Amino acid sequence: MEQSPAGAASPSTRRLKLTIAYDGASWLGWQTLPSGLTVQDQMEAAFEKIAGSPVRVHGSGRTDAGVHAVGQVAHGDVPHESKLTCPDWTRALNAVLPCSIRVMRTESVHAGFHARYDAKAKLYRYRIWRGDVMSPFEAGRAWHVFGPLDMDAMRRCASLLPGRHDFSRLSANRGSTSDENRRASPENVIRTLYRTEVLEGEDGLTLEFEGDGFLYRMVRLIVGSLVHVARGRGSEAWFASLLAAPEGVKSHRMAPADGLYLVGVKYQDNAGQHVHQGGTTDAEV
Amino acid sequence: MEQSPAGAASPSTRRLKLTIAYDGASWLGWQTLPSGLTVQDQMEAAFEKIAGSPVRVHGSGRTDAGVHAVGQVAHGDVPHESKLTCPDWTRALNAVLPCSIRVMRTESVHAGFHARYDAKAKLYRYRIWRGDVMSPFEAGRAWHVFGPLDMDAMRRCASLLPGRHDFSRLSANRGSTSDENRRASPENVIRTLYRTEVLEGEDGLTLEFEGDGFLYRMVRLIVGSLVHVARGRGSEAWFASLLAAPEGVKSHRMAPADGLYLVGVKYQDNAGQHVHQGGTTDAEV
Repeated sequence: MEQSPAGAASPSTRRLKLTIAYDGASWLGWQTLPSGLTVQDQMEAAFEKIAGSPVRVHGSGRTDAGVHAVGQVAHGDVPHESKLTCPDWTRALNAVLPCSIRVMRTESVHAGFHARYDAKAKLYRYRIWRGDVMSPFEAGRAWHVFGPLDMDAMRRCASLLPGRHDFSRLSANRGSTSDENRRASPENVIRTLYRTEVLEGEDGLTLEFEGDGFLYRMVRLIVGSLVHVARGRGSEAWFASLLAAPEGVKSHRMAPADGLYLVGVKYQDNAGQHVHQGGTTDAEV
Repeated sequence: MEQSPAGAASPSTRRLKLTIAYDGASWLGWQTLPSGLTVQDQMEAAFEKIAGSPVRVHGSGRTDAGVHAVGQVAHGDVPHESKLTCPDWTRALNAVLPCSIRVMRTESVHAGFHARYDAKAKLYRYRIWRGDVMSPFEAGRAWHVFGPLDMDAMRRCASLLPGRHDFSRLSANRGSTSDENRRASPENVIRTLYRTEVLEGEDGLTLEFEGDGFLYRMVRLIVGSLVHVARGRGSEAWFASLLAAPEGVKSHRMAPADGLYLVGVKYQDNAGQHVHQGGTTDAEV
């Protein structure tokens, strides 16, 4: 069994699994930054206020600035001497967190549980507003796409997505280091999408993507490329080639962060059992 | 035919009817204030930028700080020499307005149309979040009411509302002047509610109220009083007496502004025909 970087909780601590929702418009993404204006920084500051000592919070993956979460999952270790119950932790953390970040649920887990390495699947949602005028209630929370869309073309392209693919052309490089390493480990760009949905509502579209893992900006590039085809600006053949011919030029049709929501992360029922699978070590979008 | 205070559009101007949505959390209400941080001020500033001269914008009624609108209606007169079409006005105003205020539709109306005096009915919605933890996406947009609610009691009380009533005890005084005048004109506190709905959803409640007009803070006091009963803190007899015995003590169980939405304002089909009815001269909430 591979040891996670974070290690198991020590005998003097207890591991908590947190389900977190946040309005990403207020924050510079999940992952800690010197400014402190990230969800991870805010979570760690809240834990420190309550536990009295620093607590490292490990998310299931990063989300970019502006990306939202309904069900991000993270874990952290709190001192055993703390007598707080799980509902106490939920209430206490929410009492000190800004209202744009909420702990929806706290659970006690096995000391070996890891929010990132144990994730078996993730569900993302992307919301598109189709009204002529952007609703003031959707600003920062959906992508405003106006003009006609060929929904049949979008659906045909979306139907190509489920399955195991090399998503190189539907992902972005994270800075120069990942760029150099990209071709070195081709397994890192293989992901399996279990399910893709295109739902048409009264005022817009909702796209859902469930898979074993997602590369950096993969959902936003899939959505941006689908809309590019639906607008008649890209061909269905071009979209198909993004999946079929991974050595070609990447798509740079990226949907904005505003419409993207991390809806949930799935774990084995036995969440404490530590099984590290390469396909879930990514943690981006 | 009674002349409205705003008067009809002059021969050199054209009257526009605007349907406006706004996220009230960003603003100090509808009505102009010296700070300029109101929806009316923002609308007038936007018109002046485009028309090149001041344009007075008359709303169907005021909304308080924090109260939202999906379909506020207002009118304003623009110079005849402007060649902008109605869709042009919508686009131009939205180009200069903050994204928390949107003109959803612009229509040309008869010079005598008045957004306030011609209103025949208004529809308000109140949203209550019932989850244990407040969603970060509902902050400022719903009232978080936790703990058990006796929904049957709430429904029984809500069923008393439709009809013509003296709503004195379910309204607030707007400062000392209205206070002095309140009993002097009893007709001013009579309103007819056409419809009341209590809708239970997955995460919360939505209450809807349609009536010929609403007194100052009337919807918030109705909702706050209904919740007071549903929590078991006020009796159904107390709620009934608020309507049946208008001389008694006012309810001060006021729901917060966050959950309140002005959904729409109804006019005669022939919106240009100017008919002033006392029952719709209120313009509050």
